[in-house]
Order: sequence, then C-alpha cells, then structure tokens
Amino acid sequence: MRAYNFCAGPAALPTAVLEKAQAELLDWHGKGLSIMEMSHRSKDYVAVAEKAEADLRKLMNIPENYQVLFLQGGASLQFSAIPLNLLGKNPKADYIHTGIWSEKALKEAQRYGEINIVEAGTTLNGKLAIKDQSEWNLSQDAAYVHYADNETIGGLQFAGVPEVNAPLVSDLSSSILSAPIDVSKFGLIYAGAQKNIGPAGLTIVIVRDDLLDQSRSEIPSILKYSAQAKNDSMVNTPATYSWYLSGLVFDWLLEQGGIEAIHQVNLEKAKLLYGYIDASDFYNNPIAEANRSIMNVPFTLADEALEKLFLKEAEENHLLNLAGHRSVGGMRASIYNAVPIEGVQALVNFMDDFARRNG
Amino acid sequence: MRAYNFCAGPAALPTAVLEKAQAELLDWHGKGLSIMEMSHRSKDYVAVAEKAEADLRKLMNIPENYQVLFLQGGASLQFSAIPLNLLGKNPKADYIHTGIWSEKALKEAQRYGEINIVEAGTTLNGKLAIKDQSEWNLSQDAAYVHYADNETIGGLQFAGVPEVNAPLVSDLSSSILSAPIDVSKFGLIYAGAQKNIGPAGLTIVIVRDDLLDQSRSEIPSILKYSAQAKNDSMVNTPATYSWYLSGLVFDWLLEQGGIEAIHQVNLEKAKLLYGYIDASDFYNNPIAEANRSIMNVPFTLADEALEKLFLKEAEENHLLNLAGHRSVGGMRASIYNAVPIEGVQALVNFMDDFARRNG
Repeated sequence: MRAYNFCAGPAALPTAVLEKAQAELLDWHGKGLSIMEMSHRSKDYVAVAEKAEADLRKLMNIPENYQVLFLQGGASLQFSAIPLNLLGKNPKADYIHTGIWSEKALKEAQRYGEINIVEAGTTLNGKLAIKDQSEWNLSQDAAYVHYADNETIGGLQFAGVPEVNAPLVSDLSSSILSAPIDVSKFGLIYAGAQKNIGPAGLTIVIVRDDLLDQSRSEIPSILKYSAQAKNDSMVNTPATYSWYLSGLVFDWLLEQGGIEAIHQVNLEKAKLLYGYIDASDFYNNPIAEANRSIMNVPFTLADEALEKLFLKEAEENHLLNLAGHRSVGGMRASIYNAVPIEGVQALVNFMDDFARRNG
Repeated sequence: MRAYNFCAGPAALPTAVLEKAQAELLDWHGKGLSIMEMSHRSKDYVAVAEKAEADLRKLMNIPENYQVLFLQGGASLQFSAIPLNLLGKNPKADYIHTGIWSEKALKEAQRYGEINIVEAGTTLNGKLAIKDQSEWNLSQDAAYVHYADNETIGGLQFAGVPEVNAPLVSDLSSSILSAPIDVSKFGLIYAGAQKNIGPAGLTIVIVRDDLLDQSRSEIPSILKYSAQAKNDSMVNTPATYSWYLSGLVFDWLLEQGGIEAIHQVNLEKAKLLYGYIDASDFYNNPIAEANRSIMNVPFTLADEALEKLFLKEAEENHLLNLAGHRSVGGMRASIYNAVPIEGVQALVNFMDDFARRNG
C-alpha cells in the first residue's frame, strides 16, 4: 500500500502519475520501447517535451516573452548559473537573506559579483518573520534582486511578491505550482523539480527574453540560457525521463482544475495542520502567521525526548518522513500538491492521539 | 512487444531492468513509496546509492584511490568541469582530436586554458583511422591529456589506451562497461549514463585522488570534484532515480558475468554486423578495421535514395532508430550492452533481405 509521504524532497508524486508511468514503462504508446530509451531528438520524444512546456505555460500563464528551460543540476547549479548569466554587464546584485537556501545562493553569487546582502529575517512576538519591505536596504543599481520565495527548511515564506525596481529573480523550488503567481513580475524564476514538479534531476528556469544575453565570460557554455533557449533545452541530452514525468504531473494538475484549484486544496491543508498545531499545547510552529509556508510546516514537540518515538509511531501509521532538516532538527511536514488532504487529516489525527498519550 | 532499439542514446536498457523498475515503481520494497519519492539522505536511499557505487567498482575493478561520482549535466557539462577542475595549477592540456565529440571537448577547454590540439584523425586505404601514437604532437608539460575513446557519431574507436606521461582523461560515454579497461591507467574517466549505464540525466566521473584539488578560481562550487567526493555526490540532491536505475543495470551486468562476459558478447555482435557489411556490395562502413567501434556501427547504402525506405521497412520489422546522426547522415546501428545478439541477427537478416530486393 502507498503511505502518506511528507518528505521535503525528493517528495511525493501523485499516485495517478506513477501508475501511468508504470503502465507505459516498457512500451510507450505501443512503440516497442520505453520513453527513457528514446532519442531526445525523435519526433515522439520532442512532442512529449513540447507538450510538457505548453502545459506548464498554460498552468502558470507564462507570457510569450519568457523562455521555459528544462535543465539539469538542481537549484544549486543555478546558484552559479544565475550570476554567471546575469552579471556580465552590471556586476551588482541584491540578495535578500531569509534562511539557509537564500544564504547558499548569495554565497555563490559573491564569487562572481558585488552582492548587496539584504538582511530580511526578524522576529515578531517571538516568532520568525520577514521584515516589511520598507526596512530592506535595497541598492539603486542592482542588475537583479534575488530572493527565495519559500525557505524549505525554515518553513518561512514571503507573504507576496516583492516590488522592486530591478529584475526579480526567485528560487521557487518549494512553492512553484502551489499557488497562482504573476510571472510577468519576475525576470527569472527557477525551481528544482523534486518538490512540486517531478523527480530529482530536472530544474525548470523561466527567464525573460531581455535577460538572455548578459552572461559573464567565464560561464561554462552549457549553462548559457541563450544557448539553451535557442536549442529548446537540448544543447546536449536533457534529463528525458524526468522531463516526461514532469509532463505527466502537469497533466494531472490540469485535471485537478489547474493552479487556482490546487491552491484552494493547499490552503485547506495548511489551515487544518496549522490550526491543529495552534490549538495544541503539545506542538509548536515557530513562524509568524503572515510568513508561514503553505508547503513546509516545521513543528516541535513539547518534549524533545519524544521525537524518536513520534517518528517511529508515525511510520507505523504509514506517515513517512516527518523528521526536520538535519540542520535544524524537530519535525517538518511537507504538504506539497501530491499530498492529499486525507493525508494531512491522517497526520493531524495521529498527532492528536500521540499528544493525548504523551502530553 | 519490445522492439530492438539501435538508438545511439538515450539508448536501449535491458528489459529485465525495466521490468524490475516497473514492479517496484509505486512501492519500493514494501516501504509504501516510490524510490523517486525518497529523500536522498534517507537510510534506504543511501544504501541503494552505495550499492550502485560498490557494484560499479567491482565491475570496473576501480582502485581505492579513485573517487566515483554520480553527477548531473551530461558529458557536455564535464567538458567545462574538467578544465575548471584540473587547470588551476598548470593551465596547459593536450586534447586529441578524432571527431565531433573530442572537438566539442577541446573547444570548451580552450575557454579556460592553453590547449595543444593533437590532430589524430587520418585515412588508411580510403578508410578513416586514428594515427599511430608515434605521430602525435603531444606536449611535454600538459596538466593532462584528453581523448574520446569512442566517437559515437563517427563510429571511430581507439584500438587501445594511449600511453602518455600526463594524467589521461577520457570521455568513455559510449564505450564504458562494454569492454574491460585498466582504470589505473587513467587520471579521470567520465561518461554520460544514457548509453551503457542508465537513463539520461546522470553522469559518472571516476577521478584519481591526487587530481581533486587543482581547480580554477572561477569554477562553480557545485562542479568541484573535491566537494562532491567529500559529500558522496550529494552536495545537493542528485538524480536519484537515474542513480537507482544505473544500480539495476550494474546488477544485471554482474548477473551476465561481468564486463569480461559482456565484452565477449559485444565482440560477437560486432563481428556479425561488420562481417556482414564487409561481405556485402550493398553496404559500406567507412572505418579502418583497427579503429572500428564495437558499440556504434555507421554504414551507408549503395544508393542514398533508398535510405528512407530502409528506415521505414526496418521500423516495420521492429528494428528502431537506425538513422545516422543528423550531422553525418547515413545509417548507424548502436549495439550497446542492452542490445542482444538476437537483435543484431535480426538486423543482419533484414539488411540482407533489403539488399536482395533493392540491390
């Protein structure tokens, strides 16, 4: 049986998507071979790749003056690729610092440009929060402003899209496709696939046309957005199977009614879990309400010594991967699109039962 | 039904491997989730990853002073990563030029170092060949010597491992695991997975310990071999599903009797196909015997106008992907490990029938 999987990433995929992939794994559409055994330049594969891109454009309402790239290397390779692509004309950028992932991004950018670090983390009544934009020390001449929309480890999310004067660059790895966004407000969006898109090994980059030709001379050729855009993300062999699976996820999202519909489910799921935690004396979430992630919900137990037992019993109840990130400890429930509300309800029921028995 | 697939890459995978992957796609070993939904840092996944590495070490008899890395980005990202990792102390390298892939590698290396190009292509009785090593203009002070063991597009392969005084770096993308090699003769071996290892999106790098710390300052951090070695290829989330599938392929290879055994089958397959082509007046292979690839067999028809018909009828006979690379045309049969001798026999039978009807 399939358990409920709260892993932060690589994360749960919709069961219907895996069933489809399983059915056609050895023989795709009666062609006598697996999709992963096909040339990326074959007519059949190119049609699959193009449909995935078209469906993503539909789901996110991506304007025509944006390129959608299906790349490799994870968000971490983009931490290098972004400054290497965008700091060729103007070497200055603003990086908003709110947690572990935005810090990794800015540290890599510092190797290539002059980075103005905008410290945006704060506390509000003892809870972690993001400072109001009026308190940010943005510069006036940045080539771009970078932020991580949702800090996957901390469970800290921006309440809205920042309003800035430079092109906005955002790591949406753990929030892409979870809620509607206005792509036209961004210069560049990037996301590792392994949360809301598909399996690990694929990275989506959505970049506005005018940002394509500003690369630094030391950039590895294969990382140039302009080259990948010109070659439909096939300068070399892409991660074909991951791309195909992401296409199946996009299909599934469209069947669910698109991003607006899945967002409503996500809000319900988050309300259910945060609501229970807030009403409980046994569990605690450390984030101020306005900046709570709707995808990653960290929480602690009243007694740290009970964590191992909590995880063990959760697993026995088919509730998997609830341990917090190794850097922060505690618990974390990642409730991405593929985690159904029934899973969150089962988690809350278990948490309640556990608290009664151990509180 | 499964057809015989002669694609150059992404290429055929063993049917038994795909069947195993299919059986456990939704629920890996009764754990309630897919292997692609697991954290790369979970105990279960780490065991899968470590077993794959151990099996590859066994198959290739890799000495302990070599690191085995499971990376992303394809051989093309390595074209940049190699000079960025190895030209930090001494900026000079020799690149042996024998075809399209070795040319791509050297062009990228030229962006970071002083590259001595060793032109090694020649003709022998009207056939393409690789010059004897005595005719190569190797330099005396190169940080390394690079060559592409098997030119996938041209079907041109080195008859043995070059004997050079600098660390030897080789692109083995289309020949790795096809025949025994002495890893200790190399400084670094790299290979895109999508021919003899697994699905596209994974790249194997095997690198000697003493080459780990010679990187150039402009290298993107995630490309540093030293960092990936220190973190067991998990500086960030690796391509977990491709890594798992490559492990299944290594299992399968061990079941076949290892590399020595599969090499004997590969020699038989190559002998069958080249033997038929040589005996025929209708087909021609352009490569001198000593440098013929045992993996990629390009051939032309007596009449170029028959190519479309040949490909159409081959497909009707469940013989797929026989078109040559778009840059050279003609035909190409890639007969990697996963293509059984029955497939090559079926191809020869079809070719013979086609020649009789159209010759």
